[in-house]
Amino acid sequence: MAKHVCLLLCSIILNIVFSGLYLNVKWGEVSSLSTQLSWSREAAIEAEEVAAISCSGHGRAFLDGLVVDGKPVCECYSCYTAPDCSLLSLPCVADVDDGNPMYMEPYWMSKKESSGVLVSGWHRMGYTYIPVDDDGRKLSTELEKYIRKVHELVGNAETEGRHVVFGTGSTQLLNAAVNALSSNSSSPAFVVASIPFYPFKGDTSLWKNKTSNENVTFIEFVTSPNNPGGQFKESVLTGPSVKTIHDRVYYWPHYTAITTPAAEDLMLFSISKLTGHAGSRFGWALVKDEVVHQKMDSYVMHNTIGVSHDTKLRVLKLLKAIVDEGGREIFESGHKIMKERWEGLTTILSYSSRFSLQHIPPQFCSFYQRVREPSPAYAWLKCEREEDEDCYQVLKEAGILGRRGRLFEAEDRYVRLSLLKSQEDFDSFVQLRNIGFC
Amino acid sequence: MAKHVCLLLCSIILNIVFSGLYLNVKWGEVSSLSTQLSWSREAAIEAEEVAAISCSGHGRAFLDGLVVDGKPVCECYSCYTAPDCSLLSLPCVADVDDGNPMYMEPYWMSKKESSGVLVSGWHRMGYTYIPVDDDGRKLSTELEKYIRKVHELVGNAETEGRHVVFGTGSTQLLNAAVNALSSNSSSPAFVVASIPFYPFKGDTSLWKNKTSNENVTFIEFVTSPNNPGGQFKESVLTGPSVKTIHDRVYYWPHYTAITTPAAEDLMLFSISKLTGHAGSRFGWALVKDEVVHQKMDSYVMHNTIGVSHDTKLRVLKLLKAIVDEGGREIFESGHKIMKERWEGLTTILSYSSRFSLQHIPPQFCSFYQRVREPSPAYAWLKCEREEDEDCYQVLKEAGILGRRGRLFEAEDRYVRLSLLKSQEDFDSFVQLRNIGFC
Repeated sequence: MAKHVCLLLCSIILNIVFSGLYLNVKWGEVSSLSTQLSWSREAAIEAEEVAAISCSGHGRAFLDGLVVDGKPVCECYSCYTAPDCSLLSLPCVADVDDGNPMYMEPYWMSKKESSGVLVSGWHRMGYTYIPVDDDGRKLSTELEKYIRKVHELVGNAETEGRHVVFGTGSTQLLNAAVNALSSNSSSPAFVVASIPFYPFKGDTSLWKNKTSNENVTFIEFVTSPNNPGGQFKESVLTGPSVKTIHDRVYYWPHYTAITTPAAEDLMLFSISKLTGHAGSRFGWALVKDEVVHQKMDSYVMHNTIGVSHDTKLRVLKLLKAIVDEGGREIFESGHKIMKERWEGLTTILSYSSRFSLQHIPPQFCSFYQRVREPSPAYAWLKCEREEDEDCYQVLKEAGILGRRGRLFEAEDRYVRLSLLKSQEDFDSFVQLRNIGFC
Repeated sequence: MAKHVCLLLCSIILNIVFSGLYLNVKWGEVSSLSTQLSWSREAAIEAEEVAAISCSGHGRAFLDGLVVDGKPVCECYSCYTAPDCSLLSLPCVADVDDGNPMYMEPYWMSKKESSGVLVSGWHRMGYTYIPVDDDGRKLSTELEKYIRKVHELVGNAETEGRHVVFGTGSTQLLNAAVNALSSNSSSPAFVVASIPFYPFKGDTSLWKNKTSNENVTFIEFVTSPNNPGGQFKESVLTGPSVKTIHDRVYYWPHYTAITTPAAEDLMLFSISKLTGHAGSRFGWALVKDEVVHQKMDSYVMHNTIGVSHDTKLRVLKLLKAIVDEGGREIFESGHKIMKERWEGLTTILSYSSRFSLQHIPPQFCSFYQRVREPSPAYAWLKCEREEDEDCYQVLKEAGILGRRGRLFEAEDRYVRLSLLKSQEDFDSFVQLRNIGFC
């Protein structure tokens, strides 16, 4: 009898335990339902599925990639092939020609949660942002706010008292700036820069001390840190008919010491060199003069009716991700990679009498509050042997694809080598030592 | 005793039931876990939360909108105010000036699942699409494929034997086309169009029969259906020195009968007038000549280093959504709205001697396989009273904001009224009848 009662009691206790567990589970289900997704689920699953496609670490699949059997396929990095990019394809050319800032990709893959953005089908279908409140603030206010915040955190540019102009990349803003600065001039303006410079028109040295002709406007284009080379540059031309555009796209702690907040009248920046999103085509100008600001805005409106809203949304999300983690991590990560690459290259070349590199001194950086080792975006390599006049060809024969000196209006004894590309590209470049690097 | 056994049995049965339920629930949890989202969840929740913000049907909140207390706020349509856009703000101006195709927004809100796209933080960071296979196919292949598919489904343009050039909106492609067509000419080309036309340079009537001067290139710009007016247009100028750009952005079944697949040498289209995504800045050209195609591609590369990848990804998703549902629904939905608006307006004006509208005849449409009622994108209103020389002003005084005839090189007796805007804008426009419409 007592045994029966005991059994019954045990059974009842078990019942209570099981029902408790069941109800607990059910309750958990209900509360997780409240954060269940509805319409956005399909897009989210699609994105995660593509991200999960394995390309053996030698490639990447994208949502808009080529489709085979209903699925996007791997896009293999150079030197790799096969559907899953697992095969090394020889001979392998080390392509360090272009400035694709792929070295930042691992950073953003480590920030998956904070950097993804879901664009709804009805997101900002109209052309323009309209003013939304009585203060006339526009809807680009948030993006502008985060641009100013990033500059403030880094201390690389003075934003106060300056207008922000958005552009479809800094290339469009450069055209907009030239247009704005020359539109009062009756004759065409000369646009000049100091050699070596990223492809543009004219060399300042030809015009130095010749800028007193009042009928001609000179627009000097100063890239600082410079592309190629990475050194700080200052304007060369002076006079009432000279106007200056300061290309500041490399003035970030990945690439250079931050010495002082840049405070020029017209400065250009781009998302490409800040976050690595070259393919998003977004840049901004900080402009002091109200009239120049309006002319540049008007140029962008006429040229492309503004900047794509999809791009602005994404850029906002990326800048938020940077600011929300305190505004340091991306620069530390970027600087570390660039510094290691530069050190690797200089170490190899220190034993070489055949090649030399530009000199960049360590410098005090206000952002890091310490002396900082150099980490330029590009190596500006010189072939020192007399017979190596065509340095590009010398490298090419060894399987390295750089960019010819003449494209920067310099001698072909120089070649620009991009240090911005993926780790794979960089590794295959430094592994090619059969050209007498050592 | 029997009672105890019975109780025990009941209790054991209950135990089995509960443990079964519990295990069942647990199993369900495990299997739903397999489709649980990880890193994309945050972006998806964020998008759904913003979409759920109520703006009383008189506004919309967006992910990149102004933020108050950590949440994006409502952006109210014109005539409404208050944080939830619930207050009518008088006097209300009916703004039918611009061509923002907001009438398509409800369509995309009804296609939430298929039209959203999640852009990962590392999506296509590089500048360019690289060739991915041995046939040299590029990664833009998918987008190009869907552009061709949509044309094929609609039958509005011949794509075979034609290259596709992407642009940052059709405005950039127009510049690219002018550049490509005039680059062999030693002197500047004249760009002309027939009045009334969307703002550009020169009137064809001045140059008719004067195009035999071989030193001068004429580029005629033909918008068909026309903006404004909506009628079909043909080129006016002939001769060896005449080249023609065919602006076909309105040649879709929302706006016009499709009479035959357009098969001109250089045709422009835009996503703005096809899907309503004006803010995404994407257009394409169908180009027969290989050299012109390459020159246009090169112009876009120099002007903005291509088109933003974010935008191309979104456009691909929108075109997929159209094609996947058979390629009819969006046109039926769009045509219905535009036809109703046109009928509403013509009915009101049929009693008026003060105003008149352009005439567009019903026409056989190969897409619908029937005679189709007119549904132009714009009304081209004429003030008939002698004293109403400034028709824009007449309308403005009545609270209607149109676009002046002179901006289309026509008389100010004409005003263009946009029929593309939101239903709210259209309704507030037709409700303003105190100007002698009737």
